[in-house]
Amino acid sequence: MRKFFGFSALAAVTASVTIALTESASAAVEPETAFIFNTLSFLMHGFLVMWMAAGFCMLEAGLVRTKNTTMQCAKNITLYSVAGIMYWLVGYNLMYMDVSGFMGSFAIWSASDDVITDAGFTGDGSGYAAASDWFFQMVFVAATASIVSGTVAERVKVFPFLIFTVLLTGIIYPIQGSWTWGGGWLSEMGFSDFAGSTIVHSVGGWAALAGAIIIGARTGKYGSDGSVHPMPGANLPLATLGTFILWLGWFGFNGGSQLAMGSAADVRDIATIYVNTNMAAAAGVVAAVILTQIIYKKLDLTMALNGALGGLVSITAEPLAPSIGLAVMIGAIGGILVVVTVPLLDKLKIDDVVGAIPVHLVCGIWGTIAVVFSGASFATQVIGIVAIGAFVLITSAIVWVVLKLTIGLRASDEEESLGLDRAECGLEAYPEFGSGSQRV
Amino acid sequence: MRKFFGFSALAAVTASVTIALTESASAAVEPETAFIFNTLSFLMHGFLVMWMAAGFCMLEAGLVRTKNTTMQCAKNITLYSVAGIMYWLVGYNLMYMDVSGFMGSFAIWSASDDVITDAGFTGDGSGYAAASDWFFQMVFVAATASIVSGTVAERVKVFPFLIFTVLLTGIIYPIQGSWTWGGGWLSEMGFSDFAGSTIVHSVGGWAALAGAIIIGARTGKYGSDGSVHPMPGANLPLATLGTFILWLGWFGFNGGSQLAMGSAADVRDIATIYVNTNMAAAAGVVAAVILTQIIYKKLDLTMALNGALGGLVSITAEPLAPSIGLAVMIGAIGGILVVVTVPLLDKLKIDDVVGAIPVHLVCGIWGTIAVVFSGASFATQVIGIVAIGAFVLITSAIVWVVLKLTIGLRASDEEESLGLDRAECGLEAYPEFGSGSQRV
Amino acid sequence: MRKFFGFSALAAVTASVTIALTESASAAVEPETAFIFNTLSFLMHGFLVMWMAAGFCMLEAGLVRTKNTTMQCAKNITLYSVAGIMYWLVGYNLMYMDVSGFMGSFAIWSASDDVITDAGFTGDGSGYAAASDWFFQMVFVAATASIVSGTVAERVKVFPFLIFTVLLTGIIYPIQGSWTWGGGWLSEMGFSDFAGSTIVHSVGGWAALAGAIIIGARTGKYGSDGSVHPMPGANLPLATLGTFILWLGWFGFNGGSQLAMGSAADVRDIATIYVNTNMAAAAGVVAAVILTQIIYKKLDLTMALNGALGGLVSITAEPLAPSIGLAVMIGAIGGILVVVTVPLLDKLKIDDVVGAIPVHLVCGIWGTIAVVFSGASFATQVIGIVAIGAFVLITSAIVWVVLKLTIGLRASDEEESLGLDRAECGLEAYPEFGSGSQRV
Repeated sequence: MRKFFGFSALAAVTASVTIALTESASAAVEPETAFIFNTLSFLMHGFLVMWMAAGFCMLEAGLVRTKNTTMQCAKNITLYSVAGIMYWLVGYNLMYMDVSGFMGSFAIWSASDDVITDAGFTGDGSGYAAASDWFFQMVFVAATASIVSGTVAERVKVFPFLIFTVLLTGIIYPIQGSWTWGGGWLSEMGFSDFAGSTIVHSVGGWAALAGAIIIGARTGKYGSDGSVHPMPGANLPLATLGTFILWLGWFGFNGGSQLAMGSAADVRDIATIYVNTNMAAAAGVVAAVILTQIIYKKLDLTMALNGALGGLVSITAEPLAPSIGLAVMIGAIGGILVVVTVPLLDKLKIDDVVGAIPVHLVCGIWGTIAVVFSGASFATQVIGIVAIGAFVLITSAIVWVVLKLTIGLRASDEEESLGLDRAECGLEAYPEFGSGSQRV
Repeated sequence: MRKFFGFSALAAVTASVTIALTESASAAVEPETAFIFNTLSFLMHGFLVMWMAAGFCMLEAGLVRTKNTTMQCAKNITLYSVAGIMYWLVGYNLMYMDVSGFMGSFAIWSASDDVITDAGFTGDGSGYAAASDWFFQMVFVAATASIVSGTVAERVKVFPFLIFTVLLTGIIYPIQGSWTWGGGWLSEMGFSDFAGSTIVHSVGGWAALAGAIIIGARTGKYGSDGSVHPMPGANLPLATLGTFILWLGWFGFNGGSQLAMGSAADVRDIATIYVNTNMAAAAGVVAAVILTQIIYKKLDLTMALNGALGGLVSITAEPLAPSIGLAVMIGAIGGILVVVTVPLLDKLKIDDVVGAIPVHLVCGIWGTIAVVFSGASFATQVIGIVAIGAFVLITSAIVWVVLKLTIGLRASDEEESLGLDRAECGLEAYPEFGSGSQRV
Repeated sequence: MRKFFGFSALAAVTASVTIALTESASAAVEPETAFIFNTLSFLMHGFLVMWMAAGFCMLEAGLVRTKNTTMQCAKNITLYSVAGIMYWLVGYNLMYMDVSGFMGSFAIWSASDDVITDAGFTGDGSGYAAASDWFFQMVFVAATASIVSGTVAERVKVFPFLIFTVLLTGIIYPIQGSWTWGGGWLSEMGFSDFAGSTIVHSVGGWAALAGAIIIGARTGKYGSDGSVHPMPGANLPLATLGTFILWLGWFGFNGGSQLAMGSAADVRDIATIYVNTNMAAAAGVVAAVILTQIIYKKLDLTMALNGALGGLVSITAEPLAPSIGLAVMIGAIGGILVVVTVPLLDKLKIDDVVGAIPVHLVCGIWGTIAVVFSGASFATQVIGIVAIGAFVLITSAIVWVVLKLTIGLRASDEEESLGLDRAECGLEAYPEFGSGSQRV
C-alpha cells in the first residue's frame, strides 16, 4: 500500500461525494420522509373511505321509504362500528397474518412499528405505520358490509342483519381477502384486483344477492301476475348526496390502494388513479343518462346516480394502467350494465332496494374482467371471480339460512307494513312530514 | 496542466461538500420530496374542490321547490361528469397548451411525466405529476358550470342546458382561461386573479346572466304590476349543508391555487390563504346577518348563506397578500353586495333562483378589483373584468339564443307548472312528503 | 500552519462526508420537509375540524322540530363565523401569548414566520407555519360554541345567543384554555387533556348547562305532574349525517392535536390516534345500541348517534396512549353514560334539545378521568375538571343572567309556539312539507 495516497484517496473521496450528491439528486426520497408520506396516504385516503360509510348511509336512507329511514340510518352507523370491532378482533389477522394459502391466523390485531426506535428511525422508504394500514383496510371491510344493507332494506330485522355483519366482516370477507391481498393462492396464480372490484364490491354483492333471495322480496313488490310495483325512494337529494360522498371517497379507495406515496412514481400513479377513477364515474353517468333517455325518454336520476357508482366499481379492479380513453370506456360500460340489469333483477323477482347488486356485483365482475385490457389473464380473472363468488355466495347463504331458521330474518307482515322505524326503532325519521306507513 | 493537483482539487472538493451540506441544511427541500408535496397539494385540494360539486348540488336542491329538486340533482351530477369529459377532450389543452395569446390548441389531453424515468426521478423541486394538475384544473371548470345551473333552475330543459355545459366547459371557459392562467395576453398585461374571482366565478355568473335573460323568468315570478312573487326554497337545511360544503371546498380552491407545497414558504402561503379565505367568509356572514337585520328585521338564512359565499368569491382573486383585517373587509363588502344586489335583480326582473349572480358575478367583480389593495393596477383589473365579461356574455348569449331557436330552451308552461321532476325525470324528489306541484 | 495539509485535510473531508451521509440516512427528516409536514397536518386536520361545524349544524337541524330548523342553521353558520372573528381579535393571544399562569394577553393575532427568510428556511424540524396553527386552534373554539347551540335550541333568541358566543369564544374559552394548552397553571400542575375532553367539550357542556338552567325548558316539555313530553327531531337522516361528519372530523380533532407530523414517530402516533378514535366511537355505538335494546327493547337511533359522539368525546383526552382494548372500553363507557344520563337530565327538568350535555359534559369528564389509565394523576385530573368547570359554569351563568336581565334571552311564548323560523328568520325550513308549528 502506498503511504502517500493523496491523489488516489482524493479520487475516492470525490467519487463518494459524487455518489452522495447523485443519490440525493436522483435516487430516492429520504427513508423517514417516505415513511411519513406512505403513512399519510393511508390516513388521508383512509378518512375518505371512512366517509363512504356516510355515503352509503345517505344513499340508502334516500332510496328507502320514509317508514324505514330511521332503521336504515341505524343499521349503517351500527354496521360501520361492528365492522371495525370485528376486523380488530378477528378479521385483519385472518386476512393478513401468516396466510398459508387459504387464510391467515385467528388473533387480535395490534400495531407493531419496530423500525421506530429510541435511537430514531431505522426503516427503509417502503414502510408505513402499522396502524395506518389497519385503518385503511378496516374502512374497506366496512364498505363491503354497507353494500349488503342496501339490498335487504325494508324487511330484514336489525339483529339478524347485524349478526350477519359480524360474520361477514370478521370471517367471510377476510378469508377471501387473504387469497389475493393476503398473498394467498389467487395472488400466486396472478389474479389482479387493484382496489377491490371483486374483493370488496362483488363480495358485498354476492352476500346481498344471497340475502335478497333467502329473505325474499318486500311484500307487495311483485304481483302474482308478474307486475312490478314501484316503491320510490323517499328523499332523492339525500341519495344524490350519498352518491357524491361515495364518489369523493372513491379517490381514497382507489388512490390509497397504491399503498405508497413516498416516491415521485407513487404519487404520479395516485394522480393517474384519481383521474381514471373520476373519468370512469363521469362516463358511467353520461352513459346511464343517454341510455335511460333512449329507453325511457326520461332522465332517471336514480339511474344516473347508480351509473356513477357502476363506473366507479368498474374501474376499481385496475384504475392505474388504463389510458383515460380506456377508463372512460370501462366506466361507460359499467353505467350501461347498471341500466340494463336493474330491470332484469325485477324480472327475476330479486328485490334489491337500492340497486346494489347491479352496481357492486355486476359491475364488480365487469371491472375485474376489464383488467385483461391491461394485460391480465382472462382465465385467471375468471377463476378469481368464480372462486370468490362461490365462496361468498355459499357461506353467506348458509349464514342467512341459519339465521332464518333460528331467530328469524324477516320482520312480520305487520311490522313491515307499519315500517321498521316504528316497529324496531320506535322513532320516525320525519315525524312532522305527514308521511310514512300510511302512504305506500 | 499541473500533474499534482492535490491541494487545489482538495479545496474544490471541500467547497463542493460545503455547498452540499449548506444546501441540505438550509436551502431547499430535496427535489423528489418537493415533487410529492406539490402533487399531493393538487390531489388533496383537488378532492376538496371536487366536493364543491356536491355543495352546489345541495345548495341548489335546497333552494328550488320540491317539484324541481330531482332535476336539479340530475343536472348537477351530469354537468360535473360532462365538464370532466369535455375538459379532457378539448378544454385543458385549449387553455394551457401552446397558448398563442388568445387560445391554446385543440387536442385531447394526456399525461406526460418525463422527469420520472426508469433510472429514477430527474426533475427539480418545482414539478408535480401532470395528472394531479389536470385533476385540479378540471374540478375548477366544473365549478363554473355549477354556477349556471342554479340561476336558470326550474324552467330550463335539461338537454339544452347540458349542451350549453358542453360548450361552456369545452370551449368558452378554456379560451378565456388561457388569457390569464394559460399565459395569454391578459397575463402578459399583468391581470391578477389568483384563484378565479373572475376567471371561474364571474365567468359562471356572466353565462348565468345571459341564460337568465334569454330564458326568461319563471312563470308567475314577476307580476305585471311590478310585484315579486317569492318562491321559497323547499329544504333550507340542505342549502345550509351545501354552503358548508362549499366553504370547506374553498380551502382547496384557494389553497391549491398556490400551485406548490414543496417549500416552507409555499406551505406557509397556503396556511395564510386558508386563514384569509375563512375570515372573508366569516365576515361575509356577519355583514349579511347584520345588514338583513337592519333592513328587514329578520335573520334571513339564505342571505347569511349567500353572504358566506359572497365573502368567499370576493377573497378568491387575492387570498394570499391581504392582512386578515383586509380579508375581513373584502369579505364583509362581499356579504353586503349580496344583500344589496339580490333585490336589485328582482327589480330588473332577472330571475336568479339561487342568487348565483349576486354571489359569483357581482362579488367576483368586486374581488378582482380588490386586488388593487394588494398592488394590482386598477386599469388592468378592469380590462380583465371587462374583456372576460364581454367575451363570456356574448358567446354565452349566442349559444343560448341558438339553442332557443333550434331545440328550444324552456320547458312548456304545462311542464313548468307540473315541475321538471315529473315532466323530464319521471321521479319525484320527495314522493311521500305531500308536496310538489300542487303547492306553489 | 502547515503549507501542505493534503492528508489531514483529506481525513477531515472524509469525516464530514461520513457525518453527512449518516445524518441523512438515519437521524431525521430534513428540517424544512418536517416544517411542511407539520404545517400540512394542521391544515388537513384543521379542515376536517372545520367540517365539524357542518356536522353540528346538521345534527342539530335534524334534532329540532321543523319550525325551528332554519334558525338552527342560521345560528350555526353565524356562530362559526363569530368564533373565527373573535378568536382573531382577542381569543388566540389571550390563550397563547405570554401566558402568565391565568391568562395571556389582549391583542389582535397576526402571523409571524421569521424562520422563512429571503435566504431560505432557517428553522428546525419542530416548526410550522403560524397561520396553520391559528387555523387549527380556531376551528376548536368554534366546536365549543356549536355545543351550546344545540342544548338551548328552540327557545333562545338569536341575538342574545350570538352575544354569548362572542364572550365564550373571545374570553371564556381562551382564558381556561390558557391554563393548560397555553402553558398556564394547570399545565404546570400536570393536568392532561390531549385534544380537549375537558378544555373543548366539557367547556361547551358547562356553558350549555348554565344556559339550559337559566333559560329554562321549552314550553310544554315538562308537565307539572313530572311527565316528559317528547318533542322528536324532525329529520333523523340529517342528524345521522351530522354524526358521520363529526366522526370524520374527529380524526382531525384528535389526530391534529399531535401538533406535528414531521417524523416517523409523529405520524405513527397520528395513525394510532385515528385507530383509537375510531374504535372508541364504534364501541360507543355498540354499547348504546345494546343498552337501549335491553332497557327499551328498541334500537333508538338518536342514542346510537349520541353513543358514537359519547365515545368520541371520551377518548379525546387521551387518544394516543391507550391500547385498542382500552380505547374500546373507554368509548363503550362513554356510550353507556349517554344512555343513562339523557333521561336523568329530563328528571332534573333540564331541557337539552340534542343531548349535548350527556355527550360533551358527562363524557368529557369521564374521558378526562380515564387518562389515569394512561398514567395521569387522578387528583390532578379532578382539579382540572373542577377548576375549569367552576370557572366556565360561573362565568357563563353570569353572562346568561346579565343577558336575561337586559335584552332578554327567551323568545316570547307566542314566538316559541309559532317557531323561531317564522318569528326571527321569516323563512320556513321546509315550506312545502305541510309541517311546522301546527304539528307539535
